[in-house]
Amino acid sequence: MPELSSHFRQVTPYVPGIQPAPSPDLIKLNTNENPYPPSPAVKEALSRTSAERLRLYPSPEAEPLGETIGAHFGLSSSQIFTGNGSDEVLALAFLAFFADGKPVYFPDVTYSFYEVWADLFSIPFEKKRLGDDLRMVASDYAGAPGGIVFPNPNAPTGICEPLSFIEEILTANRDVCVIVDEAYIDFGGKSAISLIGKYDNLLVVQTFSKSRSLAGMRIGFAAGAKGLIERLKDVKYSFNSYTMSRVSIDVGCAAVKDHAYFEETREKIIHTRERMERALAALEFEFPQSQANFLFVRHPRIDAAVLYGALLEKKIYVRHFDAERTRDYLRITVGTDEETDVLLKFLTEYLKGR
Amino acid sequence: MPELSSHFRQVTPYVPGIQPAPSPDLIKLNTNENPYPPSPAVKEALSRTSAERLRLYPSPEAEPLGETIGAHFGLSSSQIFTGNGSDEVLALAFLAFFADGKPVYFPDVTYSFYEVWADLFSIPFEKKRLGDDLRMVASDYAGAPGGIVFPNPNAPTGICEPLSFIEEILTANRDVCVIVDEAYIDFGGKSAISLIGKYDNLLVVQTFSKSRSLAGMRIGFAAGAKGLIERLKDVKYSFNSYTMSRVSIDVGCAAVKDHAYFEETREKIIHTRERMERALAALEFEFPQSQANFLFVRHPRIDAAVLYGALLEKKIYVRHFDAERTRDYLRITVGTDEETDVLLKFLTEYLKGR
Repeated sequence: MPELSSHFRQVTPYVPGIQPAPSPDLIKLNTNENPYPPSPAVKEALSRTSAERLRLYPSPEAEPLGETIGAHFGLSSSQIFTGNGSDEVLALAFLAFFADGKPVYFPDVTYSFYEVWADLFSIPFEKKRLGDDLRMVASDYAGAPGGIVFPNPNAPTGICEPLSFIEEILTANRDVCVIVDEAYIDFGGKSAISLIGKYDNLLVVQTFSKSRSLAGMRIGFAAGAKGLIERLKDVKYSFNSYTMSRVSIDVGCAAVKDHAYFEETREKIIHTRERMERALAALEFEFPQSQANFLFVRHPRIDAAVLYGALLEKKIYVRHFDAERTRDYLRITVGTDEETDVLLKFLTEYLKGR
Repeated sequence: MPELSSHFRQVTPYVPGIQPAPSPDLIKLNTNENPYPPSPAVKEALSRTSAERLRLYPSPEAEPLGETIGAHFGLSSSQIFTGNGSDEVLALAFLAFFADGKPVYFPDVTYSFYEVWADLFSIPFEKKRLGDDLRMVASDYAGAPGGIVFPNPNAPTGICEPLSFIEEILTANRDVCVIVDEAYIDFGGKSAISLIGKYDNLLVVQTFSKSRSLAGMRIGFAAGAKGLIERLKDVKYSFNSYTMSRVSIDVGCAAVKDHAYFEETREKIIHTRERMERALAALEFEFPQSQANFLFVRHPRIDAAVLYGALLEKKIYVRHFDAERTRDYLRITVGTDEETDVLLKFLTEYLKGR
């Protein structure tokens, strides 16, 4: 008799950052959450949601969320696809668009979930090596046989490429789907959403988890040509008819509509990041210029794993990726000014005499 | 240059029932929603959820929801897997357990999403014909090469099999995963959850959408041996780290804990179903005895598609599945007593002189 588990899929799951139990003296800079609460309109939407109507299925199209996001970007709802966090949107996009058995290209240092999805869905892939400056080389991606996916800004480097770079890749790959994962675009970069009218093979994915302070609500979306979005919806309807709860839809709409709050919070984060960059440079840390809500830093005299442990002892959580090209670095989320002060004070003390 | 879409996955999506815009004169008996609102504790949980903490990712394990469900059934949280509706739970279970390329068995008349998931994940399958009494034949499922999935009660027939039937299938298939989809079990059947200590190949899936009036919130779960649940979690962590929002977790816990309300609502629905059965029988409708919150009815003198249209004209929504073995039937959800009265009054008038 065969083992029961011989029928099961072999996978190596993605490992998210630690989610420690809340504690007042803990500083959580490890999963790139927004240090500020969501818009007050979110609180209002939560209290306005009808508990009674939760007995009914939500809109399978997750309307009016698609319309609201579309209107925000000057697009129609037929160019928007919403999902249960951008991870679900990306997973379904992998399943929909990378399905012909040909290799998909992504960077060797990037969001490590890409490799996990590729394995889960048996999609072959090739990793393209970042340059020594940790930047993608556009020409490496020309003629990708099965498609392309990369984050912009890239994670964990924080480096953002200009739209001319995205266009170079799109032009050299007109016959495959190119997914640009813009989880961190709102912290300084230029979104490729402006290019979707020009390129029918471009899918741009964004999340409400970072710039809209809604990691706990699970809302992500994709923008693209109507043809791409229709195919993505077909795959979604083959997976789960209703992925967005009535509460997610209400809360998501409220968050998009409060544009003033969104601008205010991201300005604060950019400001803190710039202050953090100056202070870390003065402490001799090295890092590429970030346009995300995190910095990817190393120090010429300090072992990153040792520093990670020292920070953890002080309940300062950051992220260390123990792989060949990343193990010299720590990825540190931009927190509030107060959290940043505690971090910088600790690092200043720690470096004394080293 | 190849067509862009030549790289895309070919799918035929599941088609959910119509979700018409709310209207006071509309009677919605087409997607098996609960006619009663969720527990008052759900409203309280919604208003208690901290909007501020939505900036943080939820528990990746969706705790304390797993613990709460486990405690309710006398199980540990390591025997519970939660997901974004039972459709997500089932989709991930297909991906996890039906992965060796061998055919999976399910009934020919059943939840039509099974075939859609099998196609999406390239899982071969064989449909086993229900008997002329619309019942599954247990011996047909012996020695299933790749696994088994079926609903109990079956949908759209409403027929519930006893635990001895489930055990016969489990005993004859010890080396593959057997998924029992109990979306409708709370309306009169006996749950196979009591068998999971005895069979390490049994996965029982339930939903909060029907008996707990939370279709709009998207909460489902699976119960099974620790080994099965671990594999399912690995696949989930390879798809989406956080599938349950902070609000889903809070609302789900509140719903499970209000056992009195749960008992009260399901008793009301069972009572209305029995009244509806008597009235429909008096009108010469034929139907198998249902232990679900719907009836699967046909009439010897009336074409089901024509009756479907006549009901729709009166804004009474029911479901008609236009396939070989189902097209003579309508599936009608058990609504409130008032909704049932309107339905019965219409049918009585309609049948006069036919």
